[in-house]
Amino acid sequence: MTRSVGQSITAIGVDLGGTKVLTGIVDAEGVVRASQRQSSAVGDFDAAVDEIVETVSQCRAAAPDTAPAALGIGVAGQVERETGVVRFAPNLGWRDVPLGARLAERLGIPVFVTNDVRAATWGEWTHGAGSGTRDLVVLFIGTGIGGGVVVDGRLLEGATNAAGELGHQTLVAGGRKCRCGNPGCFEAYVGGWAIAERARDAVAADPVGGRLLAELAGPSDAVTAATVMVGAGREDALSVRLVDETVEYLGAALVGIVNAFNPQRLVLGGGVIDHNPWFVERVRPIVRQRALSAATRRLEIVRAKLAGNAGIVGAAAVALHGARPDG
Amino acid sequence: MTRSVGQSITAIGVDLGGTKVLTGIVDAEGVVRASQRQSSAVGDFDAAVDEIVETVSQCRAAAPDTAPAALGIGVAGQVERETGVVRFAPNLGWRDVPLGARLAERLGIPVFVTNDVRAATWGEWTHGAGSGTRDLVVLFIGTGIGGGVVVDGRLLEGATNAAGELGHQTLVAGGRKCRCGNPGCFEAYVGGWAIAERARDAVAADPVGGRLLAELAGPSDAVTAATVMVGAGREDALSVRLVDETVEYLGAALVGIVNAFNPQRLVLGGGVIDHNPWFVERVRPIVRQRALSAATRRLEIVRAKLAGNAGIVGAAAVALHGARPDG
Repeated sequence: MTRSVGQSITAIGVDLGGTKVLTGIVDAEGVVRASQRQSSAVGDFDAAVDEIVETVSQCRAAAPDTAPAALGIGVAGQVERETGVVRFAPNLGWRDVPLGARLAERLGIPVFVTNDVRAATWGEWTHGAGSGTRDLVVLFIGTGIGGGVVVDGRLLEGATNAAGELGHQTLVAGGRKCRCGNPGCFEAYVGGWAIAERARDAVAADPVGGRLLAELAGPSDAVTAATVMVGAGREDALSVRLVDETVEYLGAALVGIVNAFNPQRLVLGGGVIDHNPWFVERVRPIVRQRALSAATRRLEIVRAKLAGNAGIVGAAAVALHGARPDG
Repeated sequence: MTRSVGQSITAIGVDLGGTKVLTGIVDAEGVVRASQRQSSAVGDFDAAVDEIVETVSQCRAAAPDTAPAALGIGVAGQVERETGVVRFAPNLGWRDVPLGARLAERLGIPVFVTNDVRAATWGEWTHGAGSGTRDLVVLFIGTGIGGGVVVDGRLLEGATNAAGELGHQTLVAGGRKCRCGNPGCFEAYVGGWAIAERARDAVAADPVGGRLLAELAGPSDAVTAATVMVGAGREDALSVRLVDETVEYLGAALVGIVNAFNPQRLVLGGGVIDHNPWFVERVRPIVRQRALSAATRRLEIVRAKLAGNAGIVGAAAVALHGARPDG
């Protein structure tokens, strides 16, 4: 079988999280030609590099008709874009590792290192739900909450490349403690871990009302965000209340984000949204009603499109962008 | 007396608020050569134009050795930068008035219309406390809270020129109603009007503890933010508590702003800060401790420098920037 795509430009995109490495060969249109998932080697930098090189080989073997021009990698941590050094990646147990240089040496192609959420934002912007916009906010609501912002056609980076931590805006001053230490972060109410924590607190405070949730959680008492969604689907009153409150918190956070950034489009993705896409419909009227009318005049609120591939598509797009003569 | 400044470039800056018009002739170094204040003619657009033209004449007469090249005007409302039309200025009672075109016709020089907070931000950025930065947040905390953001050397404008409304980020989900209608805005806790409202509520809830505040307010019962500050200065327990809470709210909001924008410098200005500059010292450790360390690594939190002149200095700088061949 002959394939006609042989000559198109591709790059390798890598999404390196705390628990998995997803590697793909992605073309200039954002199409994933081949991809490979492995669990990541937490802690050992050399082993992780080997693993990435190995998954790249597998992808190349699976898409032999392309010769990727560059590699982009999004890392769950703080990176220095210019040097490709990962400064601090707590979930990987890394500090100051020369990831970009090492991969470039091993693979013989240019390597571009970025943050994983930044890469996923880039993916949704260039080939997903944010496509065609110059002012965009992308929020990934999974276990934690990450975000990326495009301002007048450029990714918001900040003074020390740390901008866009929209999950760590104070949403309830003096409120629930966040994993980051700040009281009352948006993430501490709407992140998956926080929905679970609020649910466990609610069950503890009201064992009768929490009976169904406790049952669903089983003997390990592991109420999760998913448990709450199942409970709400069964019209369990406590679960429904928790979901309603979550919608309110999410809406309240989005109002502030829209007033601050005035995006043309607000894209919601991540596990919590992917599994419960009705969140998007439910927050729309809240934002419409409560945000400043000047900021919502042309606003669209939509679901992310690329799901789990946003990171590799974005990392590959970053690489193609960076490898261009004018990139 | 001869003056040696005759040949330097100047522009006219106008700061048009709901209650006053401040007009100045400002040079390229941000020095105000002459200025003039009048109360503004609310409601009547033609009268306001006459008034602005009149104050411009007075300034020109007071600084006869300069020939301003352009005029910049910051208006308390929504403006269309490209056309110079003021879309909506509730405090002035205006809707869709061609301010830029009219002033240009009357004065015979190019006119640049912007938002008043945007102009003041530009002033602090180019000639004030934000000078030399590429990533900057400026917050003006007066009766209301306005803000401006510089991202990688450019003013954040958003999709419909409405970005930077940092006072209307949700700080207490489901909290006190803001003037904008949204519950729990930052402004609804820390804006001058909100400090006053919180104080009146506290006095009503605790007439004994609120005795000093009620006395200071006098028979009209007009407890203001200033009253609270006077009370705190006299170590009145209720006033001190209100101030402490205000510091906490301000700190909590700044944590979120720093995490979102990762500015190099955060400039605090406006009446509340100008009259109580110790707020800056008190919020610094809160932000340092609670914001993400990646975002505070190079962060400075400082007072605004230009006080009441930020608007005219900024509007003039916008005009000089716009009037440049490459502007």
